[in-house]
Amino acid sequence: MKAYIGVDLGGTNVRVAKVDENGTILQMVKEATEIEQGVEHVVAKIISMIERIDRYADCEGIGMGVPGPVDTVQGKMVLATNLPGFEGYPIAQKIGDHFHLPTFVDNDVNVAGMGEAILGAGKDEEIVYYVTISTGIGGALVVDKKVVAGKNGHAGEIANIIIDRNREKVNYLNIGAVENEASGTALTRKGRRLFGEDMIAHAGDVFALARQGNSEALALCDELAYDIAVMFSIIAHVVDPAVFVIGGGVMKGKDVFFEKMERDFRSMIHKGMQTVKFKEAQLEEPGIIGAAMLPKAYLK
Amino acid sequence: MKAYIGVDLGGTNVRVAKVDENGTILQMVKEATEIEQGVEHVVAKIISMIERIDRYADCEGIGMGVPGPVDTVQGKMVLATNLPGFEGYPIAQKIGDHFHLPTFVDNDVNVAGMGEAILGAGKDEEIVYYVTISTGIGGALVVDKKVVAGKNGHAGEIANIIIDRNREKVNYLNIGAVENEASGTALTRKGRRLFGEDMIAHAGDVFALARQGNSEALALCDELAYDIAVMFSIIAHVVDPAVFVIGGGVMKGKDVFFEKMERDFRSMIHKGMQTVKFKEAQLEEPGIIGAAMLPKAYLK
Repeated sequence: MKAYIGVDLGGTNVRVAKVDENGTILQMVKEATEIEQGVEHVVAKIISMIERIDRYADCEGIGMGVPGPVDTVQGKMVLATNLPGFEGYPIAQKIGDHFHLPTFVDNDVNVAGMGEAILGAGKDEEIVYYVTISTGIGGALVVDKKVVAGKNGHAGEIANIIIDRNREKVNYLNIGAVENEASGTALTRKGRRLFGEDMIAHAGDVFALARQGNSEALALCDELAYDIAVMFSIIAHVVDPAVFVIGGGVMKGKDVFFEKMERDFRSMIHKGMQTVKFKEAQLEEPGIIGAAMLPKAYLK
Repeated sequence: MKAYIGVDLGGTNVRVAKVDENGTILQMVKEATEIEQGVEHVVAKIISMIERIDRYADCEGIGMGVPGPVDTVQGKMVLATNLPGFEGYPIAQKIGDHFHLPTFVDNDVNVAGMGEAILGAGKDEEIVYYVTISTGIGGALVVDKKVVAGKNGHAGEIANIIIDRNREKVNYLNIGAVENEASGTALTRKGRRLFGEDMIAHAGDVFALARQGNSEALALCDELAYDIAVMFSIIAHVVDPAVFVIGGGVMKGKDVFFEKMERDFRSMIHKGMQTVKFKEAQLEEPGIIGAAMLPKAYLK
């Protein structure tokens, strides 16, 4: 059976795995990224990690997921906030030349979305939209099992979509950007304002209060549901996907907000679009499995 | 040179043309649709119009643009508000079987977008987003010269995108839907409220007042610019196109609102997305030329 090398390069950790064409992880190694020691240090680390994989040279190709927008044609990061020095660095070429293997790079959310579209919750559909709602919010459009990355690798940068222009300015994102209103970070911020920092360490504490019937927490979760529904309705009207695959930690609160979210969403879309489904992400390691699927998708 | 039959089937008129592969219209015929006489009457009319085209049987295929979402695989309209009776009718099969020619159907906005992507303002780009701002607002995503029509043919139904949830309810669309806030119809409605029905026959009258320096008209046009900018920023974050191609009658007022629109838009998108261009639609007859390009695109 064919196998591929997947690399999940994050700001904190690097993981390298050998993955077969069915998405089974055969072997995985993990290390701290140590980006503070420089780009060449990280590249040497990735190379040595790949060399620790059994029979790495027999793999068909290498796929890498990285945090931030990517020029997938050039195999370079366009913006590398969490990996200083990697902006514009020819990472695909460096790794590919070393191993004489075809090497592909894409944004970590795109890679996870492609993994879900090929092997996970979207595997039976031609047009899949993957959304992760976690600390931040990201998305990926996958048409016929290939990511639509956009001209500058910014397709799916849905964090910055305005879901309500009448909000407060939070950071560099747009006023009312969905990430500032409906991410885990946003729910934590809003929860702390209501209940204090001692009560709310993370979004899960707001969900817990809602489950206990706290009316203010329930109102926050209803607002979260509505804001997320607006985001999904916007995406639906642009691409009309067969399925939204949803990942990310905020789904741990799905019992509190998801039913209302879906009801709100369905009230915002046309009758002919109601066949769209919501499915939870299924892959245990979408980042690493999805990365390994890059060569599978592009070498066909 | 290869040639194709294009059919532009509207609620008022039907146009049939022979178009060569460079997009030149070689011959065109036009008639009233007469939908009130029934579907079979309209189909017979289209067939007889095609038969009036010189050497129609030598064409490679037939492409049709229709008003409303289309199941492009089945070749049927999903919703046919302006063509009652055509919902679910196997129009592609009926026409194709009669002429023994491959026949394709798509939404009229998708067809125009594909025409612009193949032959018009988007011809040098891989990822094109076409928007028409007229009586209504519609869009089409064209990736590698093919339309992404969505699961139910509703991709690009951007009229219903919420650009500001704090507006009034106008019709069946969402509160704050861009078509109710920034289309020609919307500008006419808002202009009439300010200046009276006698002063404002259509959106052009608001633009004319703005050109004369009327401060209320200028404020309306500034609001229009901002609302359209929000819509474009939303689409940009979902698909990151290389170019937005814009058509439709509201562009007759571009001297009044477009510069501000683009400035507002560029303040709402990431630095890495700023290469996106705006171009005006170039084809004189995008509906009919785009329809004729359907067989060209799908028969490859």
